[in-house]
Amino acid sequence: MTIENLRIGIVTVSDRASRGEYDDRGGPAIEKWLDAAISSPWLAVKRLIPDERLLLEDTLTKLCDEECCQLVVTTGGTGPALRDITPDVTAAICEKMMPGFGEMMRTESLKFVPTAILSRQTAGIRGRTLIVNLPGKPSAISDCLNAVFPAIPYCIDLLDGPYIETNEKVVKAFRPKHALLKKRES
Amino acid sequence: MTIENLRIGIVTVSDRASRGEYDDRGGPAIEKWLDAAISSPWLAVKRLIPDERLLLEDTLTKLCDEECCQLVVTTGGTGPALRDITPDVTAAICEKMMPGFGEMMRTESLKFVPTAILSRQTAGIRGRTLIVNLPGKPSAISDCLNAVFPAIPYCIDLLDGPYIETNEKVVKAFRPKHALLKKRES
Amino acid sequence: MTIENLRIGIVTVSDRASRGEYDDRGGPAIEKWLDAAISSPWLAVKRLIPDERLLLEDTLTKLCDEECCQLVVTTGGTGPALRDITPDVTAAICEKMMPGFGEMMRTESLKFVPTAILSRQTAGIRGRTLIVNLPGKPSAISDCLNAVFPAIPYCIDLLDGPYIETNEKVVKAFRPKHALLKKRES
Repeated sequence: MTIENLRIGIVTVSDRASRGEYDDRGGPAIEKWLDAAISSPWLAVKRLIPDERLLLEDTLTKLCDEECCQLVVTTGGTGPALRDITPDVTAAICEKMMPGFGEMMRTESLKFVPTAILSRQTAGIRGRTLIVNLPGKPSAISDCLNAVFPAIPYCIDLLDGPYIETNEKVVKAFRPKHALLKKRES
Repeated sequence: MTIENLRIGIVTVSDRASRGEYDDRGGPAIEKWLDAAISSPWLAVKRLIPDERLLLEDTLTKLCDEECCQLVVTTGGTGPALRDITPDVTAAICEKMMPGFGEMMRTESLKFVPTAILSRQTAGIRGRTLIVNLPGKPSAISDCLNAVFPAIPYCIDLLDGPYIETNEKVVKAFRPKHALLKKRES
Repeated sequence: MTIENLRIGIVTVSDRASRGEYDDRGGPAIEKWLDAAISSPWLAVKRLIPDERLLLEDTLTKLCDEECCQLVVTTGGTGPALRDITPDVTAAICEKMMPGFGEMMRTESLKFVPTAILSRQTAGIRGRTLIVNLPGKPSAISDCLNAVFPAIPYCIDLLDGPYIETNEKVVKAFRPKHALLKKRES
């Protein structure tokens, strides 16, 4: 039985929110969604930083390597503008990329706006941590989490993380049968 | 109010068309489509070159850095054959990749031919220029432009380029509300 | 007329199957599917190896460069776990990537399981060889081959390989008209 606790990094990447020009709405929207969705215990490790390459690199790296988060979600910085560097930094610090996350989030967002193809959102793995880029807009955040979260608990299993249980009214995690056994054994 | 003019690079990449073995049909097909679609003023900067890595690298780079095109579209060289190097050169000279463009163009082309998965079309950003690879076949060019162009004017806005207006009978550009305000202010 | 013979590398990447802890089911599932699907002559070149980066790199490279396979298919090692390195090694030894294959295989697998986004399957080209990653699970193997194989014979044509004919009851290869002429001429 694993006694390791689930720790989730929530990183808002925004020049203006980090300067206090407006409130960070992305980070709280993620935390609220996860609070409703995850029924097993978990801890949020929150960060709010500007769109600065080295600072984001350092922030993500520490959430993985020092804070031991098994999942890190970012919001903001995924567009085509000069300062949008979140996906590039994610790719730079990950050993493995997970292209299916970006594909699915864009497919999902395309149901609402044709400009969804401008999103460069991706996901990757650094060590035992899954990093997922979400959009900056709060309403788009829940669309994307609804779409990709069903696959995340099993991904964390495969990375030897804690067994995540979900509130099925919000989101239903999918695991192959042999992975469900793991829970009964523990 | 921006007084900057829209300049669009149109690059045909084809060994045989550049040797005069047949007429370039891709470049003119792009120009014709854009002429019908864009209602604000714009200038075409046309190139016709063989599938040579260094020459394509040089051509794309100059269209971005010296000719100050805000958009560069290529046709040809996106398949799996040995001489097909357009997406690779595009990736090599861009700072940011835009995977959603390739995904959408392949999804669109798959409605017509199962070999659409062989297309390696991509898009990326160099400085303030968006570069988009289109297929070589003229009929596929308009299928792809119909699919991705609705997102391009807003992308150019985000790259601080001129405000592109479209002929809605051909294609309807999409912008979020706050981006539409920009026009009224100008 | 080409007299070159079709050689297909079939590589099972699995720590446990290579240690004999269980039977390799992926490699035989691929061979059986290809046997039913391809009606022109072909030869299987089979390998069974653990999820070891250097060994997989060496195995794939030799199947391309020394065994002269025009197509190499892998099974296993495409997930997010620490030892899953097949797509990364594929990318490392290929000159060109073919993102459309991974996109289509994930789209196909998503019809069955939401965890399909965890698959990192890709395809690429090394010299004149197409390399395609398939999943590890035998049932998912045929789903993926059904989806992508219609495009493979024409891809091999474009790489100057032998003309592959298929059993249309299993899978129908697609070629544009001008590529069909090649057959009649030979």
